[in-house]
Amino acid sequence: MKEVYAGRREALRRDMRRRRLDALLVSRDVNRFYLSGFELHDAQYNESSGRLVITGDGKDWLATDSRYAEAAARLWDPDRVFVYKNDVRDIALLLRRCGCRIGIEARGVSLAFARALGGEGGLFLEAADGLAERLRHIKGPEEIAALSASFALNHKMLGWLEDSISEGRLSPGRHETDLAWTIECFFRENGATELAFPVIAATGKNAALPHATPGDDRLEAEAPLLIDAGCRLKNYCSDQTRTFWLGEKSGPAHFRFDRVYGLVREAQRAALAVMRPGVTGREAYLAARGVLEKAGEAQAFTHGLGHGVGLETHEAPSLNVHNEHPLEAGMVVTVEPGLYYPDWGGVRLEYTVLVEEGGVRIL
Amino acid sequence: MKEVYAGRREALRRDMRRRRLDALLVSRDVNRFYLSGFELHDAQYNESSGRLVITGDGKDWLATDSRYAEAAARLWDPDRVFVYKNDVRDIALLLRRCGCRIGIEARGVSLAFARALGGEGGLFLEAADGLAERLRHIKGPEEIAALSASFALNHKMLGWLEDSISEGRLSPGRHETDLAWTIECFFRENGATELAFPVIAATGKNAALPHATPGDDRLEAEAPLLIDAGCRLKNYCSDQTRTFWLGEKSGPAHFRFDRVYGLVREAQRAALAVMRPGVTGREAYLAARGVLEKAGEAQAFTHGLGHGVGLETHEAPSLNVHNEHPLEAGMVVTVEPGLYYPDWGGVRLEYTVLVEEGGVRIL
Repeated sequence: MKEVYAGRREALRRDMRRRRLDALLVSRDVNRFYLSGFELHDAQYNESSGRLVITGDGKDWLATDSRYAEAAARLWDPDRVFVYKNDVRDIALLLRRCGCRIGIEARGVSLAFARALGGEGGLFLEAADGLAERLRHIKGPEEIAALSASFALNHKMLGWLEDSISEGRLSPGRHETDLAWTIECFFRENGATELAFPVIAATGKNAALPHATPGDDRLEAEAPLLIDAGCRLKNYCSDQTRTFWLGEKSGPAHFRFDRVYGLVREAQRAALAVMRPGVTGREAYLAARGVLEKAGEAQAFTHGLGHGVGLETHEAPSLNVHNEHPLEAGMVVTVEPGLYYPDWGGVRLEYTVLVEEGGVRIL
Repeated sequence: MKEVYAGRREALRRDMRRRRLDALLVSRDVNRFYLSGFELHDAQYNESSGRLVITGDGKDWLATDSRYAEAAARLWDPDRVFVYKNDVRDIALLLRRCGCRIGIEARGVSLAFARALGGEGGLFLEAADGLAERLRHIKGPEEIAALSASFALNHKMLGWLEDSISEGRLSPGRHETDLAWTIECFFRENGATELAFPVIAATGKNAALPHATPGDDRLEAEAPLLIDAGCRLKNYCSDQTRTFWLGEKSGPAHFRFDRVYGLVREAQRAALAVMRPGVTGREAYLAARGVLEKAGEAQAFTHGLGHGVGLETHEAPSLNVHNEHPLEAGMVVTVEPGLYYPDWGGVRLEYTVLVEEGGVRIL
């Protein structure tokens, strides 16, 4: 992988030259990992585990504090590991040695950090967002392999869940939290390093909350059960949603579910059918929305159609009304229409697809 | 709890008046939760789940996007829930209605967000960090109860782990990752909602990395095993470290361990003995460091002595050489000296204590 990381930094360097940057300070943990393999997660929100300095001359720095010095030395040219005591002051010193026009990630640093760094003097700081993110739009072969492995496990979990329901092992009365934990264990005991995001297991009316937090509610019979879950495997996230029906498949309640489910499925299919390189995120969104509009239910579709998935669960590009950029081969995005009725519940269905020549492939 | 949250906002409002702020935009997820009970975690790094606007007149706003609108309405006065489509533009509109001198958390917003908000015009934005954090220094009775519950579970886990070792159930040869997962399961199956931070399970030389990530290494016999683990229970974090010896307690390797362990324990005891209201973080640190200096080993103590614990695993105050502020009753801090030798391993011992009149109480 060392060559892969180095290749990504070379691609970034080309973009830096175009923007006449002497160096780029990479602070976002996920970008740092993408470009170096060092620590995918920061120690904590607002507590960096380290930063990269991508330089014009190709001798990039890995800057970190003493807690990570040993880990950094295992990974990086020891002559280019920079151990700081004072994050801001020492990094300013390092940056001054790299030139005077320095790019920083305005979306990846706090206002306080940027002000303090600028206040150290001798540096011309320029907001240079999205350089690494733009590279991350298009997944390389090693990323597609990792994503495929992550989604394979996700499908395995969903298959097991479906079997549990159809064989009556997942009975109404269990707590949402308990089901969420069972799903988490399945992921972890089958190779995932962590969840990609907290499991959503929402029963009945809770399924009307697109970002429901599992609670003490017990799974209801004759009601929808919405499961939105993803794992991290080989560093890459997976993200899938299914909505199940618990209990007898008859009666007016199930009739309504069946109708809503059918509509959401149709909206999803309509989007999948138009998606290919050159089609915009807006067009994909409108394809799904059109189905729901025709049925008079579009007001219950309250969010975008999808988002990129990779090292982060939510990354670019978005499939929504605002995104006029065309899809490109190598992008990985979710396709997840939903209909939500606060007095009843909701249905969301989510696949994640790889954009390929001529269409998409469901991961 | 609604009254508790309201009381915290009133305390904050008093500090705002002193700073002549018309309103304070609370963006840090943990501060938002502390002041409202709304969503302890943001959806993702750089993806807010919502912000609070603390106003001069006491009618505070909970601003969020459509995904969380239903959840917000369950918690907050519906007339004061503000659902935005465009985070920056809509929040600027809201803030303009609240006055012209607006505090923002410079450490809690990105440079890009602050610039965009400032660019909307009509607002005088002022960095106003640490207002909520300062309230969070001193834990209220309901917080101490939650912390006690979280630490009680942590002690239960450590007791079980110690039994496992002494009864030979935790045998060398197991993977670090496997042990870390077993600990996580223990927490979760006994009531924790999540880990407070990823479990550190470091064998042999890995114990020399203060922030080791569990890997495929197998637990070594006749070597140190460092466990640093914490759970989140009732929203509050716990954090404890122990270092065990796996295998026969004889021979030169164990002799060295015994000596290092004894020194670290003595350093910890020295700090605990001096800590009480009025003693500074620096003094606590120096008490521990003095023991290690006298033994000629202080160069192997590479980090601070401790940090606050609460809604976050790492929060103020710090016990280190820089902190000249006195401890106060109601503060909760870790006391965790360690000695690290890259060619051998390390020992760290960590208690978390509540500062009380006259001394400290181990949680």
